[in-house]
Amino acid sequence: MTRPYNFSAGPAAIPEEVLQTAASEMLDWHGSGMSVMEMSHRGKEFISIYEQAEADLRELLAVPSNFKILFMQGGGLAENAIVPLNLSRGASADFVVTGSWSQKSQKEARKYCEVHIAASNEADGHTSLPAPSSWQLSAKPSYVHLCSNETIHGVEFHELPDLKALGCDAPLVIDFSSHVASRSVDWSRVGVAFGGAQKNLGPAGLTLVVIREDLLGQALKACPSAFDYQLVANNQSMYNTPPTYGIYMAGLTFQWLKRQTEGGLTGLAAMEARNIAKARLLYEFLDQSQLYSNPVALDGRSRMNIPFRLRDESLNDAFLAGAKARGLLQLKGHKSVGGMRASIYNAMPLAGVQALVDYLRDFEQTQA
Amino acid sequence: MTRPYNFSAGPAAIPEEVLQTAASEMLDWHGSGMSVMEMSHRGKEFISIYEQAEADLRELLAVPSNFKILFMQGGGLAENAIVPLNLSRGASADFVVTGSWSQKSQKEARKYCEVHIAASNEADGHTSLPAPSSWQLSAKPSYVHLCSNETIHGVEFHELPDLKALGCDAPLVIDFSSHVASRSVDWSRVGVAFGGAQKNLGPAGLTLVVIREDLLGQALKACPSAFDYQLVANNQSMYNTPPTYGIYMAGLTFQWLKRQTEGGLTGLAAMEARNIAKARLLYEFLDQSQLYSNPVALDGRSRMNIPFRLRDESLNDAFLAGAKARGLLQLKGHKSVGGMRASIYNAMPLAGVQALVDYLRDFEQTQA
Repeated sequence: MTRPYNFSAGPAAIPEEVLQTAASEMLDWHGSGMSVMEMSHRGKEFISIYEQAEADLRELLAVPSNFKILFMQGGGLAENAIVPLNLSRGASADFVVTGSWSQKSQKEARKYCEVHIAASNEADGHTSLPAPSSWQLSAKPSYVHLCSNETIHGVEFHELPDLKALGCDAPLVIDFSSHVASRSVDWSRVGVAFGGAQKNLGPAGLTLVVIREDLLGQALKACPSAFDYQLVANNQSMYNTPPTYGIYMAGLTFQWLKRQTEGGLTGLAAMEARNIAKARLLYEFLDQSQLYSNPVALDGRSRMNIPFRLRDESLNDAFLAGAKARGLLQLKGHKSVGGMRASIYNAMPLAGVQALVDYLRDFEQTQA
Repeated sequence: MTRPYNFSAGPAAIPEEVLQTAASEMLDWHGSGMSVMEMSHRGKEFISIYEQAEADLRELLAVPSNFKILFMQGGGLAENAIVPLNLSRGASADFVVTGSWSQKSQKEARKYCEVHIAASNEADGHTSLPAPSSWQLSAKPSYVHLCSNETIHGVEFHELPDLKALGCDAPLVIDFSSHVASRSVDWSRVGVAFGGAQKNLGPAGLTLVVIREDLLGQALKACPSAFDYQLVANNQSMYNTPPTYGIYMAGLTFQWLKRQTEGGLTGLAAMEARNIAKARLLYEFLDQSQLYSNPVALDGRSRMNIPFRLRDESLNDAFLAGAKARGLLQLKGHKSVGGMRASIYNAMPLAGVQALVDYLRDFEQTQA
């Protein structure tokens, strides 16, 4: 069976093997007589699924034992409120603005605390990565927030800042929704990482939160109990009924990720090597092209979300129609920035990026 | 293929036809080349799924045009905060306590407003239905909350109160998580109805909110934007990425529900007639039994969740093991009340209840 290549920014492509397993187990998971969707979240069958998923994720991302892994709901937009409800103590927080998502985060946080913009690339249209040495951190923020990969603007931090080296003791909060599990994380520099699942982990409706234990237990009174990290952690993400099927799909994805190999590497290291190769293939083609262009500075280019424009935008509709005819789906850019965007998450094979590059070349030649 | 009968209180049984459709469409929805999980929520494919689900639900439940249907996340426990965040205006709310769920609701609401208990059946162990004529409503509550079916205690309102007739102008809020779509709703008596999907609508992680339009736009500043009913309504439930697969599964369930027939009835009316017959079959057996008993007063007995006890509780483990051997799953009662519970939601056929009654009889005879 040949499936099209799906470049959606999220909800996004899921590995075919994962979908096949899910289909085959839909009516009867492992002889239980039940679909995973039909299991009590407190029964031994689902608990085993949950524990395996949590353990696999901890292994893949090398999450230290002093961090809790929480499976929540509401996605990144809900976390924009849930983080300050849990961490701000009603005081202040610093934000590094690098695109639409960090903009939304700082705006929402203003409901709960003072907000200080420590750095922003708004002046250049969110196409650069502000160097940490240039950040104007405030004296005592309750936390410092950044979006480590901007899904819309295609700006990625390839190294997380060392806040301590910048003279700041506050915990770093990263929104890693759109590059989670695409590369390793330096947990020594992170207090909280959160992300919606619908890019690299599984279906929409599941949110991953990884939090250092000493940051639990600070929620404001206004924080809904279901979103109080301490309560969620104390109840193994079952304070309220968790999105059980999403956790199951994420668990299948983690097992798929563990099986990956690439040039002698396995698991996340293999995936990261493949993601580097995929991104290089596409950027190198765009950079030599006369028709297409990507605006992001070299040191801030995302491996996951690659926005690009046709120099003649009157060709956009023809470009998209031709792509679809070749089985290259969902390449239209976000409505807020226009143009095109190729999201090449973990589930996108190198062959899919090659097929895209082949089409880009062919389309450009027809315009020559 | 014969599947076991699954009596879980939620996440709960899903119609086999729905699961079969989901399995068959897992890798390719209607020739799109994508799983529903892989679709952008803003693409035409998913929008068509969303709009069909919304229209089918509106038809099934006869939701008037001045009510909005919202698909949200977080389940009933999150709504316990989201409702007062949206409706209390920081003033006060009245609660009718009839079991664990309304208890949790009133407790959580105290974070956001004054709480007045207008009636409670706590004194009799949550086994009765307080008559509306006995309620002590306060002078000007911002809303009156009740749980129209208590999943744990098995107490159901078979008629919603007419607050206006009780001299109260406040909107009625009902938590209908565990009997939604099992019976019709008198919307003339309701301001807001909410429910988690994982009993009668689909998988966990999807929350249904039905709200009268004039109640929108009152959220407290502390309300996270993703849970502000007005913002959710203005964005057709896509302010944040919705739980797309859950909406798809609920949509398949709505279509299944529309196809049901029973004695000349169709759709929800057929389902309600079947639910009445299922509940009668089980209660009549329990009431004549010497071994089993259900504690709930006749006028408050739930059609959906039927807790019962063995008079000799040392038999509990043997009872559950024998049930499982007959393919009767998840009959263990909630940990907070013990005993047994049969949840017989829409997806449970009359044949499943009959199989349970047959087993109850056989087990009782082996103990005689």
